[in-house]
Amino acid sequence: MYFASDNTAGMAPEILDALAKANAGYALGYGNDDWTKRVEQRFAEMFEKDVAVFLVPTGTAANALAIAHLSPPWGAVLCHEGSHIATDECGAPEFFGGGLKLIGLRGDGAKISAPTLRAALEGGQWGGPHHVSPSVLSLSQATECGTIYRVGEIKELADIAHEHGAFVHLDGARLGNALARMNVSLAEATWKAGVDVLSFGASKGGTMGAEAIIFFDPKKGAKMPDRRKRGGATASKHRFIAAQMEAYLADDLWLRLAHHANAMADALAAGLTKAGCKPVWPVEANEVFAPITAEMDKRLKAAGAMYYPWPSDSIPKDRILVRLVTSFQTTSEDVEKFLAIVRS
Amino acid sequence: MYFASDNTAGMAPEILDALAKANAGYALGYGNDDWTKRVEQRFAEMFEKDVAVFLVPTGTAANALAIAHLSPPWGAVLCHEGSHIATDECGAPEFFGGGLKLIGLRGDGAKISAPTLRAALEGGQWGGPHHVSPSVLSLSQATECGTIYRVGEIKELADIAHEHGAFVHLDGARLGNALARMNVSLAEATWKAGVDVLSFGASKGGTMGAEAIIFFDPKKGAKMPDRRKRGGATASKHRFIAAQMEAYLADDLWLRLAHHANAMADALAAGLTKAGCKPVWPVEANEVFAPITAEMDKRLKAAGAMYYPWPSDSIPKDRILVRLVTSFQTTSEDVEKFLAIVRS
Amino acid sequence: MYFASDNTAGMAPEILDALAKANAGYALGYGNDDWTKRVEQRFAEMFEKDVAVFLVPTGTAANALAIAHLSPPWGAVLCHEGSHIATDECGAPEFFGGGLKLIGLRGDGAKISAPTLRAALEGGQWGGPHHVSPSVLSLSQATECGTIYRVGEIKELADIAHEHGAFVHLDGARLGNALARMNVSLAEATWKAGVDVLSFGASKGGTMGAEAIIFFDPKKGAKMPDRRKRGGATASKHRFIAAQMEAYLADDLWLRLAHHANAMADALAAGLTKAGCKPVWPVEANEVFAPITAEMDKRLKAAGAMYYPWPSDSIPKDRILVRLVTSFQTTSEDVEKFLAIVRS
Amino acid sequence: MYFASDNTAGMAPEILDALAKANAGYALGYGNDDWTKRVEQRFAEMFEKDVAVFLVPTGTAANALAIAHLSPPWGAVLCHEGSHIATDECGAPEFFGGGLKLIGLRGDGAKISAPTLRAALEGGQWGGPHHVSPSVLSLSQATECGTIYRVGEIKELADIAHEHGAFVHLDGARLGNALARMNVSLAEATWKAGVDVLSFGASKGGTMGAEAIIFFDPKKGAKMPDRRKRGGATASKHRFIAAQMEAYLADDLWLRLAHHANAMADALAAGLTKAGCKPVWPVEANEVFAPITAEMDKRLKAAGAMYYPWPSDSIPKDRILVRLVTSFQTTSEDVEKFLAIVRS
Repeated sequence: MYFASDNTAGMAPEILDALAKANAGYALGYGNDDWTKRVEQRFAEMFEKDVAVFLVPTGTAANALAIAHLSPPWGAVLCHEGSHIATDECGAPEFFGGGLKLIGLRGDGAKISAPTLRAALEGGQWGGPHHVSPSVLSLSQATECGTIYRVGEIKELADIAHEHGAFVHLDGARLGNALARMNVSLAEATWKAGVDVLSFGASKGGTMGAEAIIFFDPKKGAKMPDRRKRGGATASKHRFIAAQMEAYLADDLWLRLAHHANAMADALAAGLTKAGCKPVWPVEANEVFAPITAEMDKRLKAAGAMYYPWPSDSIPKDRILVRLVTSFQTTSEDVEKFLAIVRS
Repeated sequence: MYFASDNTAGMAPEILDALAKANAGYALGYGNDDWTKRVEQRFAEMFEKDVAVFLVPTGTAANALAIAHLSPPWGAVLCHEGSHIATDECGAPEFFGGGLKLIGLRGDGAKISAPTLRAALEGGQWGGPHHVSPSVLSLSQATECGTIYRVGEIKELADIAHEHGAFVHLDGARLGNALARMNVSLAEATWKAGVDVLSFGASKGGTMGAEAIIFFDPKKGAKMPDRRKRGGATASKHRFIAAQMEAYLADDLWLRLAHHANAMADALAAGLTKAGCKPVWPVEANEVFAPITAEMDKRLKAAGAMYYPWPSDSIPKDRILVRLVTSFQTTSEDVEKFLAIVRS
Repeated sequence: MYFASDNTAGMAPEILDALAKANAGYALGYGNDDWTKRVEQRFAEMFEKDVAVFLVPTGTAANALAIAHLSPPWGAVLCHEGSHIATDECGAPEFFGGGLKLIGLRGDGAKISAPTLRAALEGGQWGGPHHVSPSVLSLSQATECGTIYRVGEIKELADIAHEHGAFVHLDGARLGNALARMNVSLAEATWKAGVDVLSFGASKGGTMGAEAIIFFDPKKGAKMPDRRKRGGATASKHRFIAAQMEAYLADDLWLRLAHHANAMADALAAGLTKAGCKPVWPVEANEVFAPITAEMDKRLKAAGAMYYPWPSDSIPKDRILVRLVTSFQTTSEDVEKFLAIVRS
Repeated sequence: MYFASDNTAGMAPEILDALAKANAGYALGYGNDDWTKRVEQRFAEMFEKDVAVFLVPTGTAANALAIAHLSPPWGAVLCHEGSHIATDECGAPEFFGGGLKLIGLRGDGAKISAPTLRAALEGGQWGGPHHVSPSVLSLSQATECGTIYRVGEIKELADIAHEHGAFVHLDGARLGNALARMNVSLAEATWKAGVDVLSFGASKGGTMGAEAIIFFDPKKGAKMPDRRKRGGATASKHRFIAAQMEAYLADDLWLRLAHHANAMADALAAGLTKAGCKPVWPVEANEVFAPITAEMDKRLKAAGAMYYPWPSDSIPKDRILVRLVTSFQTTSEDVEKFLAIVRS
């Protein structure tokens, strides 16, 4: 019953197989290998357009490098106040961006609404030399609350950002979970909706450690190799990052893994709702935020269930809001066991 | 005949096995796992003292994070002018170090001599507010020219550095190759000789991608978790980096792999010497710098041999200096084939 | 009728005289001069303790250098969301601080309340490796809304900050105006109330361009000369900055100038209140925020009055909130003329 | 006998007058004043072309901001190894430039020769992702050794730099002294010779503290206001920096002051040569580097003469190389007195 995070899971068997296969013979380092070339081609096919692709070992590196490449040091990156880049990366975007500024916007379910974005951009004090200038809108898909932006929402937000001279970055650490929920193409969910740069996550989804920065205008990716290298994020035996990503993308493995994780979340949500612990936000990806009782909490912990509480001001005082994250590795048995303890 | 770099090799079978074994079940992320704890203990045993250990995915991250942690932004890092940190990391130490300055010293075979270091520290203009202050001496072991520092040499250099208020960093991307050549303990070759912080390399030696920053005074490592995280170098599924390192250290695998690579370099050197192409620097690790003829070069390339030329002003005009790097994966057959072509 | 900013004023005659007098003969550069020594002594007397003093040409440099010296790059600087460092310095603290993070707190009249600070420090997610760590509480005295912190308020806030491991920085760009209003000593208003580092402003108060960074624990100022120099903020002909400051401090000129500016603000406030435009925040320094009518605004502008509107959501729709800043140079005639137009 | 530095002088009387005159009435801050506009126009006239002008309080800020604006963080700034930016600014270019790298070139008399520059650019390892890329050639005019680049020399160096994709920055802290020596126009000596950006120094020349960054392609100066502000280098009461510069440029005051300083240096050089202490480098600006005897040194110091020794390996062991810097304030009497002591 490991629901602490999707990064407590291992890697999917297909990924391990790919590593084993990639371990034959020699390959030039730093991305000058065939695996990397194939991954670049695969992404171009998936996105239905030329893209510039940069693989990195961690999601924090992906986000920070992408944002730093889009924003001057005097830029302001608008994001949800509870987003991963704002709260969980120990200031990585600020560091990589030469001291840029993150502006946290409010919004229920970790989503930014169009009116909120517009108000921030039109109501605040922006523009040099005294004030920082909006440079990037960074959205998370799925969000920290397990909700997702529908294509129309992204498009509306992206239009507002572009109208004000800001680029759009999508933190897709859980993009697979979002896509698995929507009936749209990858292109529709990203660049066709106005996304300029994407952190395509694969680590949480089922690889060992591989993320891709995708520039939908390949020219915008110029000099990213230099930034990535000096950022310490260029793997020397690069074929092994590429091999993970290749396997993750092959035969839509990434979507199949995400579907499973989402289904497990749905099952948890359904069971919890029945037990009187209806999730406080729509369960649209692989995270469930449920207000359980102190007794349930005690029973679950005693049984070894792993999960974290989630700070909240708005649930009843006799409840504890907990975050449950499922992954490709979560089993129905785990979910059933968990729910049985809840109900007991 | 892949002698382009030791990073063109894959990973040793033991490493792949370790990844497969580590892929069972769940583990907390970011280093809160058993593999990481075991690696920390193993390093403490190997170094015969308490150490602070931080695993990262790349050697550039290891070096840059270590140096940034030792030096204020107004510090000067003295290193060989041809060292990896000075020439091959695209300015990573300067970036991570908030704009610190690298001071390249000269020296044959990529080694800094004690008189050169002393002259630099006592002859130059140092000290604030106008001048930067010496903060770190960074040595490479083995060096970019495949030579090594003997323990007495490190000790002498470290004493000079410490005398002038600078810490000593050792870039041990090929530490295994150096150790395999010397008849000394790991402790003797590092902290007992005055090294304060070590980048313990494992990627070039035979893992897929794993490096360790080792602080011999564990207190000096305080807040490195924060710096590593905001530097994008904290693996979420950290067990897999730790598992690689654990296997690499187990049963002295790292030294056995290095011994093999060194032996292959020795064989290359012996054959080249016989063929009239005596290496220009002592072959003390896994690199051979040999002045071959243009005809040999043509024949080798035609046969598919992979290696890079090395810039040099001091070899005869009718020769080409080439760098040949061996690895754990290099076979005697490859070496023999290469030498046969040289001789033909 | 120049009420746009106190930096639209020139310098007090005493400052110009001091520059003229300091222009005799030679003096060593970069602070190795007698003026600088005398300023350091004068500050020590005024603060009734040893202090480390660093003069710089701009208030932004003073704030950014001070904060960068107190905070690691992974630190969080808590400040009012409308403070100068947060909104008007184009990200200088983030730049000088290596990518640190400013956390804007809310509070009426640009003041942070103790409960707000406590809630922020105890309720949020803080601490490495994932989250930034509170490193500095930065207060403005007087605030951007012309209000001031009483000594007891500073003490309470400083105690909370210290309790949570954060230093206290005071942005005293208008410290004179605040002091002139309170019946306390400079020591009581600063270090005795818990302030660790002060940006002592003199430019807005009546010099040409001179600010002092004051460390109340002189040891904390170690290496600030290096940081200041590489920050481009060390004047070569330093005696001229010191001479300004010396004259500003002599015979309490700074307080006398501030008293005058405050009195002019009081007169404006009294007149505006009588005219039905009561200031929205207490007038405690040299700034008046008054909700005037559109007709008043039109008349004032037609008469050449200079001032800026101030964004506000909480005043009646038929009113415009304007900011009026007085200075040592403001005359009673200007104030009277302004009020006459308001009343007409 | 103050020959320690030209920054030990005060300001020219015309500058003090200008400050006094500028102290009448009110003026908007941060450069929105008439003095600034007039300075911008005056520079355009002097340079015979549109230029973007940014005034800053210190020479270090001018150099560091200019270089940071021309170079990406992964850029390499080629300069003389003894240049001010390399040795005397405590790493300011690296700090402002986000961790860029300075590459020090050798050359007699602190001058870079065309073959040296070409060899550096064509012989070294340059270009991402592993190596930094040449971004800026920074020349000092006059140099740290009191020599100057003739127009043809600048042109040749600039052509090589441009050919390799690097911009040309001129550190003109003592540009007046260089210009006063040459029979060329300001335009010929700068942009017509290939200079892209100039740090136009005025502090050493005779102002209190004022420097200008000049972009010869005004578009290149876009966003410099933001960089300057966040760099803490935007004066609030900007009119006083502009007033200094206006007076400095009026009626060629800057050249007249420089002519005087140069003449004093010439007189020193002539006298020292006669006394057997011929300067080791051509005296082309306001600095004399003379190898005096230990006895002269003793006599001069006893008489209160102020100057610094200059490190040198190439003068006779019984001599001490000293640097003598003259300024607008140096008198013939001082020179004569100094020479009399030398001869006695």
